Amino acid sequence: MEHMDFGRHTSREFNQDLENIRNMVLEMGGLVEQQVGDAMIALLQSNSELGQQVEDRDVEVNALEVKIDEACTQIIAKRQPAASDLRLVMAVVKTITDLERIGDEAEKIGHLAIKLATDTHRPEYYRHLELVGQMAKTILGNALDAFARLDAQAAFDTAKSDRKIDDEFETLSRVLITHMMEDNREIKNVLRVSWCARSLERIGDHSKNICEYVIYLVKGKDVRHISLKKIRKQFFNNPK
Amino acid sequence: MEHMDFGRHTSREFNQDLENIRNMVLEMGGLVEQQVGDAMIALLQSNSELGQQVEDRDVEVNALEVKIDEACTQIIAKRQPAASDLRLVMAVVKTITDLERIGDEAEKIGHLAIKLATDTHRPEYYRHLELVGQMAKTILGNALDAFARLDAQAAFDTAKSDRKIDDEFETLSRVLITHMMEDNREIKNVLRVSWCARSLERIGDHSKNICEYVIYLVKGKDVRHISLKKIRKQFFNNPK
Repeated sequence: MEHMDFGRHTSREFNQDLENIRNMVLEMGGLVEQQVGDAMIALLQSNSELGQQVEDRDVEVNALEVKIDEACTQIIAKRQPAASDLRLVMAVVKTITDLERIGDEAEKIGHLAIKLATDTHRPEYYRHLELVGQMAKTILGNALDAFARLDAQAAFDTAKSDRKIDDEFETLSRVLITHMMEDNREIKNVLRVSWCARSLERIGDHSKNICEYVIYLVKGKDVRHISLKKIRKQFFNNPK
Repeated sequence: MEHMDFGRHTSREFNQDLENIRNMVLEMGGLVEQQVGDAMIALLQSNSELGQQVEDRDVEVNALEVKIDEACTQIIAKRQPAASDLRLVMAVVKTITDLERIGDEAEKIGHLAIKLATDTHRPEYYRHLELVGQMAKTILGNALDAFARLDAQAAFDTAKSDRKIDDEFETLSRVLITHMMEDNREIKNVLRVSWCARSLERIGDHSKNICEYVIYLVKGKDVRHISLKKIRKQFFNNPK
């Protein structure tokens, strides 16, 4: 397992500052994970109250983003971090943008759950949707674990797994289109389900972004927009 | 007009560095604007070649993001910027993330334009789509202008105008649903058009984000997730 240790500064306050923003990111990550989980429960169980709660709690996610951003700016101004410390701060600044957007996607699913809750009929494709939801939660959880442990190998494996959600999303989309064609009256609701699926797929994308920041942080190189094959060749020896 | 001047450092190199990242952002903004414009032409004129070109050029947008990010990290490490200089660097780091995602949306529209090009039939709702496209291009252009001139008032006005795209997007979505219900065979293509519309709406959101960074940069306060009414009260005197 690749990992880094930031607890090596002579200044105890500096260590504390860095530890502090890492913990805040994990707190924000935990909240966002819960939002995604709750949004999926609201959707699958026609629970409009829970859907509303997810919508309402998005302000907490947003507030954390602003707070962590401020903390990062202050660390840069006060501590003038260099090398891996600076990479940590920059990775945090990027990570929280993606976490905030995952929060937005959860909010959208919560909102759609309310609209869909009036119709308690749950066709077969909801099982498929549940599966995509599980995959999104797993990749998000794994990305946050990789961040917590600064584990580049785990980040790489997780980033790679995003393709599975994309494939599953494509399959689900085809199923939904067939349903729309079969029953005109269902178009509006099936369309709403397809927006939920799209949000889940985006949660996968954002989680993949977080993994790329972890690799950048640990390996010291920006790996965004580089193919996974190239990344493996350059940074990881084990063939997978 | 509110504006700032960054050309006041005793170190000429520092001024040059700051000017340099601003110019790179404007270069990236110009490229992204062109991508959005080309994607819309490809879509409206069933030009699959141009759609392909938009898809292919997305790598240029991505490369610029990585390059600017590196330049920002280097400025922080080398120059240890404080106050408004640091805010500029942080605003740039955030802005290019949104520009990159606008590029992704343009790429998606380009991709969908190719799929839709085989069907040269252009129903009435394409005019409506063109209107939403025009609005997206306008808000993006205005956001970039506000950034170029560091004009907080223009940024505020532009951010406010995002609501118009959201409204227009909702209207268009309703029109598209009606079309799907009327003609089953058209569902797949109408759905593709609705994905394009969604991408345009997101371009509006990202442009609004850029405006918020400009306000943060000029006014020194993070205004994300605050209602526009509150922002006006706090920072702008003119009633609008």
